[in-house]
Amino acid sequence: MKKFIDENFLLQNVTAQELYHQFAKEMPIIDYHNHLSPEQIARDVNFENLTQLWLYGDHYKWRAMRTNGVDEKYITGNATDYEKFEQWAATVPYTLRNPLYHWTHLELQRYFNIDTLLSPATAKVIYDECSAKLKTPAFSVKNLLRKMNVKVLCTTDDPTDSLEHHRRIKEDGFEIKVLPAFRPDKAMNVDDVAGFNNYVNKLQEVSGILIATWSEYLQALKTRHDFFAEMGSTVSDHGLEQLYAVDYTDAEVKNIFRKLTAGESISQPENIKFKSAMLVQFALWDHEKNWVQQYHLGALRNNNSRMMQTLGPDTGWDSIGDFSQAKQLSKFLNRLDHTNQLAKTILYNLNPADNELLATMTGNFNDGTVAGKIQFGASWWFLDQKDGITKQLNTLSSMGLLSKFIGMLTDSRSVLSFPRHEYFRRVLCNILGEEMENGELPDDINLVGSIIQDICFNNAKEYFGW
Amino acid sequence: MKKFIDENFLLQNVTAQELYHQFAKEMPIIDYHNHLSPEQIARDVNFENLTQLWLYGDHYKWRAMRTNGVDEKYITGNATDYEKFEQWAATVPYTLRNPLYHWTHLELQRYFNIDTLLSPATAKVIYDECSAKLKTPAFSVKNLLRKMNVKVLCTTDDPTDSLEHHRRIKEDGFEIKVLPAFRPDKAMNVDDVAGFNNYVNKLQEVSGILIATWSEYLQALKTRHDFFAEMGSTVSDHGLEQLYAVDYTDAEVKNIFRKLTAGESISQPENIKFKSAMLVQFALWDHEKNWVQQYHLGALRNNNSRMMQTLGPDTGWDSIGDFSQAKQLSKFLNRLDHTNQLAKTILYNLNPADNELLATMTGNFNDGTVAGKIQFGASWWFLDQKDGITKQLNTLSSMGLLSKFIGMLTDSRSVLSFPRHEYFRRVLCNILGEEMENGELPDDINLVGSIIQDICFNNAKEYFGW
Amino acid sequence: MKKFIDENFLLQNVTAQELYHQFAKEMPIIDYHNHLSPEQIARDVNFENLTQLWLYGDHYKWRAMRTNGVDEKYITGNATDYEKFEQWAATVPYTLRNPLYHWTHLELQRYFNIDTLLSPATAKVIYDECSAKLKTPAFSVKNLLRKMNVKVLCTTDDPTDSLEHHRRIKEDGFEIKVLPAFRPDKAMNVDDVAGFNNYVNKLQEVSGILIATWSEYLQALKTRHDFFAEMGSTVSDHGLEQLYAVDYTDAEVKNIFRKLTAGESISQPENIKFKSAMLVQFALWDHEKNWVQQYHLGALRNNNSRMMQTLGPDTGWDSIGDFSQAKQLSKFLNRLDHTNQLAKTILYNLNPADNELLATMTGNFNDGTVAGKIQFGASWWFLDQKDGITKQLNTLSSMGLLSKFIGMLTDSRSVLSFPRHEYFRRVLCNILGEEMENGELPDDINLVGSIIQDICFNNAKEYFGW
Repeated sequence: MKKFIDENFLLQNVTAQELYHQFAKEMPIIDYHNHLSPEQIARDVNFENLTQLWLYGDHYKWRAMRTNGVDEKYITGNATDYEKFEQWAATVPYTLRNPLYHWTHLELQRYFNIDTLLSPATAKVIYDECSAKLKTPAFSVKNLLRKMNVKVLCTTDDPTDSLEHHRRIKEDGFEIKVLPAFRPDKAMNVDDVAGFNNYVNKLQEVSGILIATWSEYLQALKTRHDFFAEMGSTVSDHGLEQLYAVDYTDAEVKNIFRKLTAGESISQPENIKFKSAMLVQFALWDHEKNWVQQYHLGALRNNNSRMMQTLGPDTGWDSIGDFSQAKQLSKFLNRLDHTNQLAKTILYNLNPADNELLATMTGNFNDGTVAGKIQFGASWWFLDQKDGITKQLNTLSSMGLLSKFIGMLTDSRSVLSFPRHEYFRRVLCNILGEEMENGELPDDINLVGSIIQDICFNNAKEYFGW
Repeated sequence: MKKFIDENFLLQNVTAQELYHQFAKEMPIIDYHNHLSPEQIARDVNFENLTQLWLYGDHYKWRAMRTNGVDEKYITGNATDYEKFEQWAATVPYTLRNPLYHWTHLELQRYFNIDTLLSPATAKVIYDECSAKLKTPAFSVKNLLRKMNVKVLCTTDDPTDSLEHHRRIKEDGFEIKVLPAFRPDKAMNVDDVAGFNNYVNKLQEVSGILIATWSEYLQALKTRHDFFAEMGSTVSDHGLEQLYAVDYTDAEVKNIFRKLTAGESISQPENIKFKSAMLVQFALWDHEKNWVQQYHLGALRNNNSRMMQTLGPDTGWDSIGDFSQAKQLSKFLNRLDHTNQLAKTILYNLNPADNELLATMTGNFNDGTVAGKIQFGASWWFLDQKDGITKQLNTLSSMGLLSKFIGMLTDSRSVLSFPRHEYFRRVLCNILGEEMENGELPDDINLVGSIIQDICFNNAKEYFGW
Repeated sequence: MKKFIDENFLLQNVTAQELYHQFAKEMPIIDYHNHLSPEQIARDVNFENLTQLWLYGDHYKWRAMRTNGVDEKYITGNATDYEKFEQWAATVPYTLRNPLYHWTHLELQRYFNIDTLLSPATAKVIYDECSAKLKTPAFSVKNLLRKMNVKVLCTTDDPTDSLEHHRRIKEDGFEIKVLPAFRPDKAMNVDDVAGFNNYVNKLQEVSGILIATWSEYLQALKTRHDFFAEMGSTVSDHGLEQLYAVDYTDAEVKNIFRKLTAGESISQPENIKFKSAMLVQFALWDHEKNWVQQYHLGALRNNNSRMMQTLGPDTGWDSIGDFSQAKQLSKFLNRLDHTNQLAKTILYNLNPADNELLATMTGNFNDGTVAGKIQFGASWWFLDQKDGITKQLNTLSSMGLLSKFIGMLTDSRSVLSFPRHEYFRRVLCNILGEEMENGELPDDINLVGSIIQDICFNNAKEYFGW
């Protein structure tokens, strides 16, 4: 009987253990996509207690608590921080086999050196010990990042963002690179015309460009793309149900923009034409600057309108959709590739039923110019657990080149999520170690070990040019 | 080499064996959804021979025999009972790796204490021994159920059903609760207008309510829902390709109903509007009475029209569809949740490609009011085997709370199917035991064992309120 | 630590090893679908070097090289044969976990008796040794096939093909049966009207029938179907995104054909009507002659228009689609079955998300007339690797009868691909051996071994009538 989360956690054979401890463990981290708060990093804040760090913003935990029958008062409501923690502690034993069970105890071990299992019986002691530590300098946000050996991280930012916190972080000489990423989802969200017009106004202010036409809209957005580049960004990101790639003319899109800014309603085909046009524009800019563009595909968001009205988006009411992906994705990538303007691209997939589709799609546009140019992105969101990671690695291996994979990212809102890189590395080493032991891979630990190091760090470093 | 189906069948490690034998094995059974005949239970019949019990109604076996090249004469035709059995016995060795191979031998062991493998060589002896036993009191239907430690079972019944057999079972003081479930599929089946009108007439008779309008139709159905409740029912069930959730107005639906009862044809959009409206009505009644509503999604039925004409539905010509599920399911659930009228709900899925979609959908409407309020239902029909069960358990674990799962059901037409609960429990214990052994779960057999007992029995007991 | 690709490669337990070595290994091969060149077989050519054999036509390798960042010059361009080989050798270590890694080293072992791993360090020696051997008589195409114990193979041929090479192979008395298969994809490709008319003209010439109407078109195609039958063919094949099965009338199709031959454009619904009609015609002929019809479903082809223009089709720019499959497939099969005109049918699936759908669809039309009449075809193209094979075998096992499976085929353009049969057999034996060892199957090696021999050879022999 192996101890729960011991040093060989997830490493089920000796070769896997060697691979992890000798090759993977010490590699630094490039976290090329997450949702950390640049403000918290800039201010190098200390959290007051574990609830603030764990439970103020983590919709994964909220969903688990709700499923466990916990009242919303103890989740997003006005209960005290400790009352909320108690409810979470009471839920934890029931999250067994959910990634939260592993994340929770990994985070307690790695950051706080606590081996105890969280439960009602241990809640008080753990809460007190962690909260006390959190108030010490060693547990400031920057020090938490240092502890994890992070070299670069990329936040996710709206084009209208001033990036003032990124600037301050850089000016303060923080040795970990904290870069912005250009996420223009709102700039193409014409499902909500009023919201879109607010966005246009905001962009007008921020860019200093008067926006009356689509061309001016693009011009203003382009200045922001340029600004992000000045601030060190080399990455864009998009959250989409599916790629939009219908045919359109500039005249049509100009007219749609005119309608929108006049507050007129647009038809569903016009909606898709507009989004199709915007996606191409963003992609052309990414290509011009040799950026990496990321597409997160397949989420069905805001399913619960009652809770959406109360709590707003990103509070745990999203799920996996079954959108048609292949034809439009192909058309979109081909449209750019046809004129040789397809930037390096990462495709993330939320419905594992589409794993093979996505993995083989990458091969259609890997043209030999850049190793691993089109990436089948790491397991994401609901798939960010042993099963999901394993499936993504296996599909990528069978249908592409695992060796050119740029590896893991946290995609997290929490500064405590970095053990997910360790988790990923352990799963990776375990798979490869097992196949070395059973003769499916050669018994050449340096060959396999160096590919592991590439996947953990080197590939991302080269791919992003950091 | 382990013996075939020995006491540690499917239990591949010591911890799994402890979990099963110490925690799971003795838990009673709540079979909250099946297709047993209440008449057979009420009459406490004895079957004449094994063919009548095994082969008269089991389309799983029929499909296997047909695939093995057996003539229909020996399946649903006029061959003698023993001739049919011979053909089945000749097919059994070729069902190796199909769940039928395990079901068959588990049922021989558990009910008849027969360890011999069924094959042409053993057919006669097994047939004779089983048929002899079946004629004894110990093998009456009620005694077969008692032998399996069943506490509650739910049949599947049409709203027009008199439930006389359920009444008799209760009056006879049978200690196993045999409850009806409200399955109004025919009440919304407007694909066949003539059949629908027959149904309306039948409902008129049974309810005593004159049905000229949609309101009266609802009123009549409601009296049946009330009657089912009086008879102890707390569960409804629906078999659907996908959830229908288009927008409609009462005026539209009233007019569609008028057309239908006038024998006029309706359009496809009207068809879907009608079904959408009916599903909401049923769901509102389920919520009013605090029932559990079940949706079996994704079957593509009656594919073979030639055999449909000869043999009718449910004779083995159904398969798995690839319907679009996410958006309409979300809309349906949200429509009810929005006004806080969403009842406890179980979503069963027939296409495993949609497992993750379904499992994450449940989280969108788990609002903390009831633990595990929206359930990702157990593996069903074609998925009711080790692979399918494992996938359902893994998806549920990764994307929800396995600990709150209400567990297994037979969904069977056969009174011999209860070893499927044992099968499920063994798979469950094996998964958890393996993870305890390899350090992915804590080595706390009481923690894990108590969650197993919850999944086997306690959760269902609490969820259904029995 | 097991040696890489030793004699027990992929056989992880003693029983699996016994099953493979005692039952599977020596079975001959029926390769009932591939893309070998009948001309190369007829001429019994010797290849000049390993590049010509491995790299001139293998889009699997091309995709891997492009993903590894190799310039097109070294793939399909004007680099020398050895320069191309060097690039491939440099790519091979990075294909680790891709099936290419296994195929490559299996082929070196099985055909050339070379155990060395291919890499830049070993490239020269391996190239020279293989190329020298390839020039010897023992390495002629016919001898390569003999070495693999092939009994029958089926190529893939257009209806307009003269089949002269097949004739010569037969006349030369080659003891391995080399049969053509009727693949009329171009005969229904009305997406390209000009190309279609060229095809009609070509068919006119070959058949000697003047084609002015749809009836004459069918008549001309029918003469080719008859001719293929005379030449020994008993198999047809179709590559389709999805089955087309909309309603149509003969008058409509005649008119569509008239439009097409007049060079007029047709609408999308007309396009699908035409394809639906052609598929029925082909299927009726297959049924008349008791042929086996094969449908390869789900590829999304020619995604990269830039490379399509340069290199043409089948050069590595295809991927997996997410087409809707169930309803139309059901309608198509039912249309034929309804009049008892459904031929033996193999359904191949490219998107593993549809595995269960396809596997259960077969059961809807297995009517007992032929054992395993409708087959869920072997893992294909991107799925032709351990993971894909395992999933197909597991799905087939759980939802159909594995025992009636007609087994593996190479589907390859390369005469070196026959070790894929060995690969498949090892995976099969490993799965069954493991379940014998752990008590999920009976410890009856003759029972299991004989089913393995059926799957490896006997079932195909009987199914195809060879």
